[in-house]
Amino acid sequence: MSAFLDALRERLGEAGLLVDGDLAAFEADWRKRYVGRALAVARPASTEDVAAVMKLCHEHRVAVVPQGGNTGLVGASTPDDSGQQLVLSLSRMKRVREVDVSNASLTAEAGCVLADVQAAAAGAGLLFPLSLAAEGSCTLGGNLATNAGGTQVLRYGNARELCLGLEVVTATGDVWHGLSGLRKDNTGYDLRDLFIGSEGTLGVITAATMKLYPQPKDRLTALAACSSLDDAVALLSLARARAGDALTGFEVMNHSSLALVARELPQLAQPPGPAAWTVLLELSDAESAEHAHGVFEGLLETAVERGAVQDAVIAQNLAQARSFWHLRESIPLAQAQAGLNIKHDISLPVSGIPGFVAEMDAALAAYLPGVEVIDFGHLGDGNLHYNVQAPAGIDPKAFLSAHEGAINTLVYDAVQRRGGSISAEHGIGRLKREELAARKDPVALQLMRQIKKALDSQGLMNPNRLL
Amino acid sequence: MSAFLDALRERLGEAGLLVDGDLAAFEADWRKRYVGRALAVARPASTEDVAAVMKLCHEHRVAVVPQGGNTGLVGASTPDDSGQQLVLSLSRMKRVREVDVSNASLTAEAGCVLADVQAAAAGAGLLFPLSLAAEGSCTLGGNLATNAGGTQVLRYGNARELCLGLEVVTATGDVWHGLSGLRKDNTGYDLRDLFIGSEGTLGVITAATMKLYPQPKDRLTALAACSSLDDAVALLSLARARAGDALTGFEVMNHSSLALVARELPQLAQPPGPAAWTVLLELSDAESAEHAHGVFEGLLETAVERGAVQDAVIAQNLAQARSFWHLRESIPLAQAQAGLNIKHDISLPVSGIPGFVAEMDAALAAYLPGVEVIDFGHLGDGNLHYNVQAPAGIDPKAFLSAHEGAINTLVYDAVQRRGGSISAEHGIGRLKREELAARKDPVALQLMRQIKKALDSQGLMNPNRLL
Repeated sequence: MSAFLDALRERLGEAGLLVDGDLAAFEADWRKRYVGRALAVARPASTEDVAAVMKLCHEHRVAVVPQGGNTGLVGASTPDDSGQQLVLSLSRMKRVREVDVSNASLTAEAGCVLADVQAAAAGAGLLFPLSLAAEGSCTLGGNLATNAGGTQVLRYGNARELCLGLEVVTATGDVWHGLSGLRKDNTGYDLRDLFIGSEGTLGVITAATMKLYPQPKDRLTALAACSSLDDAVALLSLARARAGDALTGFEVMNHSSLALVARELPQLAQPPGPAAWTVLLELSDAESAEHAHGVFEGLLETAVERGAVQDAVIAQNLAQARSFWHLRESIPLAQAQAGLNIKHDISLPVSGIPGFVAEMDAALAAYLPGVEVIDFGHLGDGNLHYNVQAPAGIDPKAFLSAHEGAINTLVYDAVQRRGGSISAEHGIGRLKREELAARKDPVALQLMRQIKKALDSQGLMNPNRLL
Repeated sequence: MSAFLDALRERLGEAGLLVDGDLAAFEADWRKRYVGRALAVARPASTEDVAAVMKLCHEHRVAVVPQGGNTGLVGASTPDDSGQQLVLSLSRMKRVREVDVSNASLTAEAGCVLADVQAAAAGAGLLFPLSLAAEGSCTLGGNLATNAGGTQVLRYGNARELCLGLEVVTATGDVWHGLSGLRKDNTGYDLRDLFIGSEGTLGVITAATMKLYPQPKDRLTALAACSSLDDAVALLSLARARAGDALTGFEVMNHSSLALVARELPQLAQPPGPAAWTVLLELSDAESAEHAHGVFEGLLETAVERGAVQDAVIAQNLAQARSFWHLRESIPLAQAQAGLNIKHDISLPVSGIPGFVAEMDAALAAYLPGVEVIDFGHLGDGNLHYNVQAPAGIDPKAFLSAHEGAINTLVYDAVQRRGGSISAEHGIGRLKREELAARKDPVALQLMRQIKKALDSQGLMNPNRLL
């Protein structure tokens, strides 16, 4: 190992290799659920340096854990506790290499913080739509390695759909120069999408070319009260037909979610008497504020006439719009304040969601009377955060240790029966690795293992994550 | 071989296996550029039958050429002349299995003709936007295997972007049950996008779940005259900013293209005195005909004020709109009438197109004075059909045999220097296999070969196509 570290130091310099001292920031995920110990932390400053690191790892058979902003939720970007894994931090590679306005694209390095990518696009008068809670510290490389979702997926897609091309260092230290501003390119296998979402197990993404969009002229937000999830699904179909791609947000929150926020965060403005289901709609208009208002009012009036919506309010100004979003985004915080809970990041075909929720709510009530379901998420994407809290009076920690396994099985069995996913946007990492092995189509697993073996024959890329 | 054919016949029945008689329809592509000889033609009626065929091929080491509507342009779906390759026709698997209106998705088998997929969506009040000239005979499986493009890519993407999930039979005869109506699913490697565009070299797509969209309320078409490609690019940026995703078509045609159509097809209505560049714009409006007109008129007025457009006309009715599209779509026919030419299906970053065309036009004029460039295509996607015709008075056949290699080298060298693609939408197949090997990033080629070997270790899936 000392020969390996010496060779690394020679290549990267003192600034590029951390061995002694406090490596804690690199060894634990931000929620401190996975705390490990690194052999060292390599901090290359260029693609060539990353290639040199990977060549050395390959020669010396050292396992590598690529790391971006370390904001992931499934333990994929921190080392295990062996002290034998090298953390490869991309944090020094944070340049925006190019903004191409006429091509509506941007090329940035993997360590570039998401908010900086957004700012570079805005500086050129364009929109980079990827947006999520961690945007102040997560990085573009991490967003791509995990195929990040966020709040604008309905209109603009996940990180995958926003990517045009990649630069990747392979497990053997070769550089694939796949950066590209092309919208169309049918010259062989789709390597780009294979590396996207592979959680650092196939190679190291060092830079990417991403799509940009025109800035909308106006953005409007509304809350609508629905008496059932079926009504919310009907509202979604109507909104899609009326607003087309101007519909950029469609979030649902069940009664318990908003009641919890009211209880835990009473300082926030609440909608009057939360409905069975509250929908947050966002419209991004290419024309004008006036036009946006016209479309939104027409849509909501029709929805009320048809009985899909009981009541609705359009935010009258930016502050009120922000307060609507703030309600939605405060649910996880309210949950954290209320204590531990059992989280599920699931997706289903949109048409299957009302049936799933009815079935699960009943099954959970039968399994443990008084249990509370905090159910919210991106209905437009078929993605629910279906979280389960202890009944009143039961200690959350005891609840988790007694019931987490059984409740996960109930939820994931139902998701699987209905053709859903046990990880809609957070990935697999270490957290759901065993669930994946047990539940994924066996032929898919076999194909994934064959690909892993082909591209990382020594098994050194982020081992024991995902697969 | 006779044991293999007997086993096949036993499994598929007489209707499922063609050995004797006229197999010509399966042995040549529709343009008759690739004429081969098949060992036999298997026509399975179910996914299980496809799996059985593949298992037998694997056991007996028989090479397989999957075939859909056989409308490809690169020779990927017909057998070589060895008489040893089995054609696997998906033509009997043509069921639309499900239309899910609330989820805006549809599941159909690989042999389903594209027009039938479109009709099934329309029957449910929705739009399946993939559209191309061969839609009356090409199949969904072929569209996916080649990642087909077409006229609606600007707004809706290629076949890849329209696909949610796949059912695939592997080279060893296993079935990957990857059909899915999910918009979000981060559970492992993106196998879907790996099979899409792999031209039958990794496995056999047997069914797919595809995205559907709301039908637009109105569709408007316009022609705009621009005096340069720079102006056309400026018009594109303006149209995107004003119309957002309502902009569903943005095609360009150079002066020579329309002059050729006027010469070869004088019966068609021509725009008065074709401009240096004529742009065809299409707007699909989610609201109303009135709204669409307002947006279109405002956009074109601004473009004229800014000098990007010299003159413009909006189609006043459906018949006129069709005549505009018909002009654009008649260019290949006019070219065929005028005789052989050297075709290039290339893409570049949109911002790089004016420079590329100026450079190439000059280089070609210097190489062979009098040569004519028929340059048209999907400017919004950065995709040009940059075709080169013999100078007046020179026999096209002699022109091709003397100059095709040199002109391809001129064009592809310039494309490569500018980060473009030598096959934007048609694929590689046999036609561009050597160009790909010579021009693709060597690390990408190496990764592709590793994946091919991992998923098709015996090399039986459509051998010598693509790779």
